[in-house]
Amino acid sequence: MRMLDIIIKKRNGGELSHDEIFFFVNGYSSGAIPEYQVSPLLMAIFFRGMNDIETAYLTEAMLNSGEVVDFGALPAYKVDKHSTGGVGDKISLILAPVAAACGLAVPMISGRGLGHTGGTLDKLESIPGFNVHLTLARFKEMVTDIGVSMIGQTQEIAPADKKLYALRDVTGTVESIPLICGSIMSKKLAEGIDGLVLDVKVGSGAFMKDIESARELARSLVAIAKNMGKSCFAFLTDMSEPLGDYVGNALEVIESIELLKGNIDDRQLELTVALAGKMLELSGACGFEEACARARATIHGGSALAKFRELVRAHGGDDSCVDDYSVLPQAKLQYEVKAATDGYVTSIATTMVGLSAIALGAGRGSLDDIIDHASGIKLVKKVSDPVREGDTLGVLYYNDESKIERAAELFSQAYRISDEERAKEELFLGTVG
Amino acid sequence: MRMLDIIIKKRNGGELSHDEIFFFVNGYSSGAIPEYQVSPLLMAIFFRGMNDIETAYLTEAMLNSGEVVDFGALPAYKVDKHSTGGVGDKISLILAPVAAACGLAVPMISGRGLGHTGGTLDKLESIPGFNVHLTLARFKEMVTDIGVSMIGQTQEIAPADKKLYALRDVTGTVESIPLICGSIMSKKLAEGIDGLVLDVKVGSGAFMKDIESARELARSLVAIAKNMGKSCFAFLTDMSEPLGDYVGNALEVIESIELLKGNIDDRQLELTVALAGKMLELSGACGFEEACARARATIHGGSALAKFRELVRAHGGDDSCVDDYSVLPQAKLQYEVKAATDGYVTSIATTMVGLSAIALGAGRGSLDDIIDHASGIKLVKKVSDPVREGDTLGVLYYNDESKIERAAELFSQAYRISDEERAKEELFLGTVG
Repeated sequence: MRMLDIIIKKRNGGELSHDEIFFFVNGYSSGAIPEYQVSPLLMAIFFRGMNDIETAYLTEAMLNSGEVVDFGALPAYKVDKHSTGGVGDKISLILAPVAAACGLAVPMISGRGLGHTGGTLDKLESIPGFNVHLTLARFKEMVTDIGVSMIGQTQEIAPADKKLYALRDVTGTVESIPLICGSIMSKKLAEGIDGLVLDVKVGSGAFMKDIESARELARSLVAIAKNMGKSCFAFLTDMSEPLGDYVGNALEVIESIELLKGNIDDRQLELTVALAGKMLELSGACGFEEACARARATIHGGSALAKFRELVRAHGGDDSCVDDYSVLPQAKLQYEVKAATDGYVTSIATTMVGLSAIALGAGRGSLDDIIDHASGIKLVKKVSDPVREGDTLGVLYYNDESKIERAAELFSQAYRISDEERAKEELFLGTVG
Repeated sequence: MRMLDIIIKKRNGGELSHDEIFFFVNGYSSGAIPEYQVSPLLMAIFFRGMNDIETAYLTEAMLNSGEVVDFGALPAYKVDKHSTGGVGDKISLILAPVAAACGLAVPMISGRGLGHTGGTLDKLESIPGFNVHLTLARFKEMVTDIGVSMIGQTQEIAPADKKLYALRDVTGTVESIPLICGSIMSKKLAEGIDGLVLDVKVGSGAFMKDIESARELARSLVAIAKNMGKSCFAFLTDMSEPLGDYVGNALEVIESIELLKGNIDDRQLELTVALAGKMLELSGACGFEEACARARATIHGGSALAKFRELVRAHGGDDSCVDDYSVLPQAKLQYEVKAATDGYVTSIATTMVGLSAIALGAGRGSLDDIIDHASGIKLVKKVSDPVREGDTLGVLYYNDESKIERAAELFSQAYRISDEERAKEELFLGTVG
């Protein structure tokens, strides 16, 4: 088998076989196939695509390049959630303890924020002492003991994906649905899960701006999982404005705890319940409606919050933050962005809100940026809200005076206010399962 | 300027600027841009193409990566011919002395044969002593002195093209019209020519199998030359069967000398006259018809043959071969391939004839193959000829017994004989100018 023939086959629109895909992934991993032959194949895949079977083989090859967690005889149903990312999306922090409190095992390997979207690891690290860098052995132990653990990617997980991703990043081959799907799924399936629930975001703050491309991404992800013998279900949900009222790491931790305490009843709760309900349904425990009721009960009954405390402690974090938010990093300064006119909020350019958060220090513009966990944004007005000139649209929290001007400019530019009232987008825009 | 942005721009169908194209060609030449970023750009060019302006910039960048011959005050019009290659195409050997005998300066840098097509350098090297490896200084001197020189590519000519071609060869990006055109033209324009005549072959033995794709290639080549301020004209000519009666290096030299002696009056002569006529017309000396008459007169008057002798001697070759063909390598063995049935030759699979010649040792299947200059093929029957069972279709000349079986099989498979008479393809299928 020659790499050149594989490149030409894909270039000409052919379907790569199991052996061809494993040949190229393993050859690149081992260094036998040079980067200059891998990158044109990636470009050919960008143009020609891959069908579901090819994408499943790619996922399998990348998955098998590293370790796959094996929970052995653990009786609990092992299930995770993956979100394609957005602004203010803190659902993992709420969902993981809810699902674990339902009796599910939740082995969650997450990423950091980059660009306008936030990352679960950064949010968790705003809790003093919380260690996301555990070994896979400790991770497995924790999931076995308390039903949940939340860590970052380790070197053992899908190293071929890491190497391929680094190459895609410098060769203009990031934006390819099969390559994106293979990358996501090889990491998720390394968690040793039985099932996976997907939250595919749609709208101005999401990777997928329209429902059709989001549905295509969801369809492809679900197909890979099923081709690899896993249960999988995807929700398409709105990301045309930030999720919830807060953006920023410590601020989102507080909002998550408030949700777990039952103090917030909004679409974040709705989404958490739906995702947890689907996870429980996939486990075969009960039907979707009863599953949602059980998920909701873990919040009202306090078992989800207790599981959250347990999770924080197990990761070395200070769980007194649950009762005393001053334990979390707090910004010294606040700035209120005011409305310049009367009307209704008709849209929020979500990416711009994310960029405003980056400008405050809450996110990363580039990989080397250091995060200020205290900084962030409270969205006082959301889409469809009426506003009057001088009303506060949002509050910016920050520590560095030099950053506020740019951040405030970005934030106020994100808001479109007009005379016509505009209804909020629906939260649930579709499903693929 | 970042290579990544250039890749993404082309991937998305954008037009690359002069600066972007020079940035990537110069950066790759110097080693500043890694191969793993060049090869996906080449693949994106494969898919998205390049317009005439981009292709001219690419050509210019590759041309300028090396030396361009400067003939200074040499008054003669400097002109060359490029053929896209075929089987039995020995026209350069005839045309160069004809054109030089017409008073044109012909600085010809040629290639070797690879695959089923032959190469001018291999043919010349079948003349004992003929040295195609001259320095550019000696080349220039010879063109200045006798009006013609025929050499191989030197290290100084378009090194960026050499480096890019080697990368294309292992990354599935050879078959791209703009990349092919840039590669051809950067080498040709390095000869320091004022004008160029193209012979774009069409048919079963050519790179372009149909007239539309041949016309597109010709159009692109002519556009590059004109964008770079050179005169250029393309003939589209038939390669649905081998050109002339002989295939093989020494055999083609003999056929060329016979043509120069005026002993052959066939389409090879027609083609030579048309190409030389167009070269002379481009020089502004006279109109096409008169130019063709002048070209023809160099053959009948003997000045072309005299120029050929001069050329051979100047390159260190033994010009007694002109009078005594036994000076040239001669095969020890002959084998006649016979017709198995009565009828007419309706087609000859030209590529297969080329492969038969390779099997005999007359060509290269891979770059490392060593050529047997004596071996080759005489085509006794051509398309439209009537044949009877047992007639000789062709004679194979060879030195190595072990090769004849495969070669004869390929040769006889190339012939299609049927009851219906079929007219020969026209020689001239179109022009672009």
